[in-house]
Amino acid sequence: MTATTSPLPIVRTVSDLRDVVRDWRKQGLSVALVPTMGALHDGHLTLVAEALRQADRVVTSVFVNPTQFAPTEDLDTYPRREARDAELLAGAGAHLMYAPTADQMYPDGFITTVTVGDAQTGGPAQDLEGAARPQMFGGVALVVSKLLNQAQAEVAIFGEKDWQQLMVVRRMVADLDIPTRIIGVPIARDADGFALSSRNAYLSDDELSVARKLNGLLATAAEKAAAGEPVAAVEQAASDAIVAAGFDRVDYVAIRRADDLSVFTANVDAPARILVAAWLGKTRLIDNMAV
Amino acid sequence: MTATTSPLPIVRTVSDLRDVVRDWRKQGLSVALVPTMGALHDGHLTLVAEALRQADRVVTSVFVNPTQFAPTEDLDTYPRREARDAELLAGAGAHLMYAPTADQMYPDGFITTVTVGDAQTGGPAQDLEGAARPQMFGGVALVVSKLLNQAQAEVAIFGEKDWQQLMVVRRMVADLDIPTRIIGVPIARDADGFALSSRNAYLSDDELSVARKLNGLLATAAEKAAAGEPVAAVEQAASDAIVAAGFDRVDYVAIRRADDLSVFTANVDAPARILVAAWLGKTRLIDNMAV
Repeated sequence: MTATTSPLPIVRTVSDLRDVVRDWRKQGLSVALVPTMGALHDGHLTLVAEALRQADRVVTSVFVNPTQFAPTEDLDTYPRREARDAELLAGAGAHLMYAPTADQMYPDGFITTVTVGDAQTGGPAQDLEGAARPQMFGGVALVVSKLLNQAQAEVAIFGEKDWQQLMVVRRMVADLDIPTRIIGVPIARDADGFALSSRNAYLSDDELSVARKLNGLLATAAEKAAAGEPVAAVEQAASDAIVAAGFDRVDYVAIRRADDLSVFTANVDAPARILVAAWLGKTRLIDNMAV
Repeated sequence: MTATTSPLPIVRTVSDLRDVVRDWRKQGLSVALVPTMGALHDGHLTLVAEALRQADRVVTSVFVNPTQFAPTEDLDTYPRREARDAELLAGAGAHLMYAPTADQMYPDGFITTVTVGDAQTGGPAQDLEGAARPQMFGGVALVVSKLLNQAQAEVAIFGEKDWQQLMVVRRMVADLDIPTRIIGVPIARDADGFALSSRNAYLSDDELSVARKLNGLLATAAEKAAAGEPVAAVEQAASDAIVAAGFDRVDYVAIRRADDLSVFTANVDAPARILVAAWLGKTRLIDNMAV
């Protein structure tokens, strides 16, 4: 069932995963799930650390989910480094890697979809990442509902790096009454405040030096919005500053209500988040912070 | 938490339901869920009987689910008889009625949907009831996924009366990896073979005498199809016979593959089911049987 050469046990089927979780339960141990797409970095390891605070045993799933990539996106080139991931997870104290195949997740005949709202109902999946990547949140809602039902963990840990995704997952879990508590973990940043991401591996040294300016520009905008400057003007100024700093294109800079990501008509008058997506060459970077 | 005048305990919130189920689990008891829309009859009680064979404790949910009714359908007039339902369930040996309010199931901000396939992917939700009642299977998939996640029962029991619904539920539960075993129970019929239904209460005596002919006509058609007669001809002959027997309109008579309800191009060459929906006055009746 497990790879003997791996530094931590790896299971690849739902049934093997459930066998391990069932054994833990019989011993009275609580379980946390950390869903990832692999290519792990220190940011993921902060999720594992939080999982270890929340539960006795930690399962990390590693699955590059095809349903959340559009045909034009980087599914095939998305970094895959399972052996290294297993080492990092073992070092961080995780107890099991769950690395299902695409066939295991989406066998022949699979047809069900999970959708967190639409243009009419609104909600956190609309707009921003949902507009830029129309496949994404349907794919995320589907794979997360499956992973949560497969693992039946008490808690599941997500990074705030994908803030909008975290809000979509929270909404979906609440709406479908999935009995798993969802916990968000603050973004892991390097010494310059640059948010860690698997896609940072795509960046050249020159691009990296531009990328490192993003967080500071975002902080400046957040301060202005918090001080009462009109949201639209702050967003526009931040977008201009990001391009001036050397980014090739800005998909969005948006200051939104923190939970459902709905817009402010004038000033920030409720708990808010500033979110950005911008391009450096062929790499699309995202970041966000509290306002 | 429970109504003291009721012959069996009634809970109305997810949290009260989970408290009861958690207590049972601590005692090592297994749990079965029987989802219903109330207005219980002997057919439902055969589901409870099967549930008692499958598990130590039986929860019957009673919820007239608004998301599976179209605005033009009979949501408001659908029969509601909670006190009598509680009596019947207590007599049948059920242990708990779960009767949530619509607000408990769909609170403000609720936006998630569950869809079991579409015109492109095909699958059991397309066509037949899915064509006649476009709201229905989306509503069913949503409410069943919620009820299963709320109750966290080992097994859930559904009647074969709604055969297509049972196939949709099986597909959804498999696709989303919901950890509940789904069990179908054969249709309960009266002495004339007439399938029991909450909507039979709508029928006048004259309509009832016509309705009782439906099962025999279906059996004749099933025999012909099983004997190798072309499916399309058998369907047409059965439809004509149902109108000749006094029905006002036939929505469909369909002989389909039993699991995914896909069509046969000529003769029955795989496990099959014959399904019918027909109107008597303002009442729409459905029935089905193995071919």
